[in-house]
Amino acid sequence: MNAPTEMNHLMTVDSTPELALARFAAGLQIGDIPEPVLRRAEDLLLDWIGSTLAGKGARPVETLTRFVSAMGPAQGSSEILINRTGSSPLMAAMANAAASHFAEQDDVHNGSVFHPAAVVFPVALAIAQAQSSSGAELLAAAVAGYEIGIRVGEFLGRSHYKIFHTTGTAGAVAAAVTAGRLLSLTPEQMSNAIGSAGTQASGLWEFLRDAADSKQLHTAHAAGAGLTAAYLAKDGFTGARRILTGVQGMAAGMSRDADADRLTDRLGTRWTLAETSFKFHASCRHTHPAADALQQIVLRHKLAAEDVRAVTAQVHQAAIDVLGPVTDPQTVHQSKFSMGTVLGLVAVHGRAGLAEFDGHYKDAAVVAFHDKVRMVLDDEVDGAYPIRWIGKVVVDTHDGRTLAGRVDEPKGDPGNTLDRGELEEKAIRLALYRDGATEAEMRRVIAWVWSLASAERVGMLLDRESA
Amino acid sequence: MNAPTEMNHLMTVDSTPELALARFAAGLQIGDIPEPVLRRAEDLLLDWIGSTLAGKGARPVETLTRFVSAMGPAQGSSEILINRTGSSPLMAAMANAAASHFAEQDDVHNGSVFHPAAVVFPVALAIAQAQSSSGAELLAAAVAGYEIGIRVGEFLGRSHYKIFHTTGTAGAVAAAVTAGRLLSLTPEQMSNAIGSAGTQASGLWEFLRDAADSKQLHTAHAAGAGLTAAYLAKDGFTGARRILTGVQGMAAGMSRDADADRLTDRLGTRWTLAETSFKFHASCRHTHPAADALQQIVLRHKLAAEDVRAVTAQVHQAAIDVLGPVTDPQTVHQSKFSMGTVLGLVAVHGRAGLAEFDGHYKDAAVVAFHDKVRMVLDDEVDGAYPIRWIGKVVVDTHDGRTLAGRVDEPKGDPGNTLDRGELEEKAIRLALYRDGATEAEMRRVIAWVWSLASAERVGMLLDRESA
Repeated sequence: MNAPTEMNHLMTVDSTPELALARFAAGLQIGDIPEPVLRRAEDLLLDWIGSTLAGKGARPVETLTRFVSAMGPAQGSSEILINRTGSSPLMAAMANAAASHFAEQDDVHNGSVFHPAAVVFPVALAIAQAQSSSGAELLAAAVAGYEIGIRVGEFLGRSHYKIFHTTGTAGAVAAAVTAGRLLSLTPEQMSNAIGSAGTQASGLWEFLRDAADSKQLHTAHAAGAGLTAAYLAKDGFTGARRILTGVQGMAAGMSRDADADRLTDRLGTRWTLAETSFKFHASCRHTHPAADALQQIVLRHKLAAEDVRAVTAQVHQAAIDVLGPVTDPQTVHQSKFSMGTVLGLVAVHGRAGLAEFDGHYKDAAVVAFHDKVRMVLDDEVDGAYPIRWIGKVVVDTHDGRTLAGRVDEPKGDPGNTLDRGELEEKAIRLALYRDGATEAEMRRVIAWVWSLASAERVGMLLDRESA
Repeated sequence: MNAPTEMNHLMTVDSTPELALARFAAGLQIGDIPEPVLRRAEDLLLDWIGSTLAGKGARPVETLTRFVSAMGPAQGSSEILINRTGSSPLMAAMANAAASHFAEQDDVHNGSVFHPAAVVFPVALAIAQAQSSSGAELLAAAVAGYEIGIRVGEFLGRSHYKIFHTTGTAGAVAAAVTAGRLLSLTPEQMSNAIGSAGTQASGLWEFLRDAADSKQLHTAHAAGAGLTAAYLAKDGFTGARRILTGVQGMAAGMSRDADADRLTDRLGTRWTLAETSFKFHASCRHTHPAADALQQIVLRHKLAAEDVRAVTAQVHQAAIDVLGPVTDPQTVHQSKFSMGTVLGLVAVHGRAGLAEFDGHYKDAAVVAFHDKVRMVLDDEVDGAYPIRWIGKVVVDTHDGRTLAGRVDEPKGDPGNTLDRGELEEKAIRLALYRDGATEAEMRRVIAWVWSLASAERVGMLLDRESA
């Protein structure tokens, strides 16, 4: 019987981008990775540990952790960071992935609008601990996960991100690659792992409208699905070879502007991990450019919040898609997706950090400022996105001034990044935020991360005795 | 700041189809379910047990079972049927879901093209065993899962099924509802469970092109994701309220012809569970109408396979979408998606059962027949689909005859169903197929199923001593 040519399963698989990604990820050695990229990977790991500890005590995170603990083994060598218990790699990865994406302090890659750390490092740590991998193996696996996950996010494009949480979807593939590299998958097995991950990829933005808890579920799911895909592949389980680009694959089902060239763009020479940004404000990244631009105006003109009559944040379309539904934030978490609240905290308190959100998101002054803020689509900002996240705001004051603020690179972006001192300070602040760890413990963790590349084996991060 | 009206989170949630489904599922009592529907639910449960045991020894099923066993607790009261070990509800549900969807003998609902048993019963059994629920509770939960899952499948429509495996996507919601009913969720919690399930929904057809193992992963994933969603909801975890119909929900992301009216169509009076078909041939359901029509011609005209010059199977579009890519089946499993192989087995061996596939799918006579078969889109068949699965074939013989065969309802459909004797025989045959259970064990299982509605508590199904 006849079938379209492109459906012929005898197609040479060597020609697919999926196999190119699988070969790259399976073969990546620490010696292939430039020093600055490795150092940035360590930076990102430390930033992730802080973000994870900051999830301690958060209701959705604790709920998900209780669930995986109940469904998993009572002990194991993979560490659930928020409560210092051991479990299987699957369960620990899911719990840590949920925790690390709660405080909105984990990293982001601008071009793909993807938060790699929250799905890559939970898997890397859990498996490295389970099999006593070396620090170099953990880092190489994490770099592989970043490189493939970010490219998958870029490939899926803006139409995908309008509906889907790319960190959930591309994240499943990133998690599979990370796990697969630590499990020493062959290229063929890695291709199968990517196939099995992609067919489980999911995560919808609909929850934003209700301030529901799904964001943490998305990272837990992506980490779990990807880890599952890799372990299955190691044991011979097969997956679709063209799960990204095939006629019934991810792009066919979940994107209208997928660009296959992005998948293998300068693979091995362009290191997308180094393009990743650290979060400075404790809110959705889409609010950061405008927050920095407003902060600039407030400082430059010594404005008080009550001096302001109206603020126009000139944004890219995705900011409107993600933040637009949040018109009247009812929870701390939802308020992190409210442009009005974020700008209100900056105007009233000078910054939008974890403590400002917790203590002040519903203060009358902040709410009053919230109501002065509107978002408009800006052609320049939208055209530069997602490669560059330009921040532009126009402030109208009660005394009749119109003030324009602009940042070309928000704080934390590669060209305006955090140095190791700032990263250490941020990680400690996050660890202390909900008593995830003491400063002394974090100093030991920091020393461990900075020497990870030469560590013979990955053990427990936190001292269980002191928990 | 302004946002479109439909994005206003203060919308009255009582008006959503999602909440109507949640209320129905949370409130469903066994006394609400008509007797014939309950009896059919028992039929479906027995059919599922047989299908699950037939998955024993299958490589992908055993691989997935090894994985969940390694990641889960070493014991528990939820039973993995293929190896008679106990685990947590999550792990047992995933293993049994994978097993039950392997032999292609599990049920199907025509209108939604959804295989409910493979995602509903694994969850129902695992949780009922874990908490010693009554048989009536298990059955009510399963009926709730069928009713919601089938309607979600119908809602997502044909455009969804072209790319997505509805059993994976709608299946996650069905699993969540089943689990939620056994966990006695409130309507609000049930709504959250549906939200958390929908945002994890996934499953792409791309694997068919490579004869990859994803089908079993899809059912395992759906069962696991849905069960997770329900346990999380019980513990306060929230989900999107409009995950099906919202502007960034499942239909927005994964369908172009979603019809929200289908979600609540005669809820509580139309029992979609009773519309479900039992599989007769051991192949993809899309091959069954044509297989029955060919069998009719072969018997009526006493044709031998070598008498046939050409066969034209007149099919609906979805059959072409799913079966079309399989042009040269290389594995038993792939051959179950080959119209040519299925018709070849019917022509050469009189039936396309498990044993025929295993022993003969690559026989020269079957392959020769395979090459005589083509599929063409038929307007009448396509117009009736998916409500009715009409089978039409035209056979051209070497002696110049042109013979037309037609069935209006394939064997196993509600109007041409299997009686309890036939179901018992099928279940025993499936159990014996790979030594999943002995005939004596299956006789005890059959008696247990037929009296389940009055069972005080659900315990182990199979005798562990005799394993």
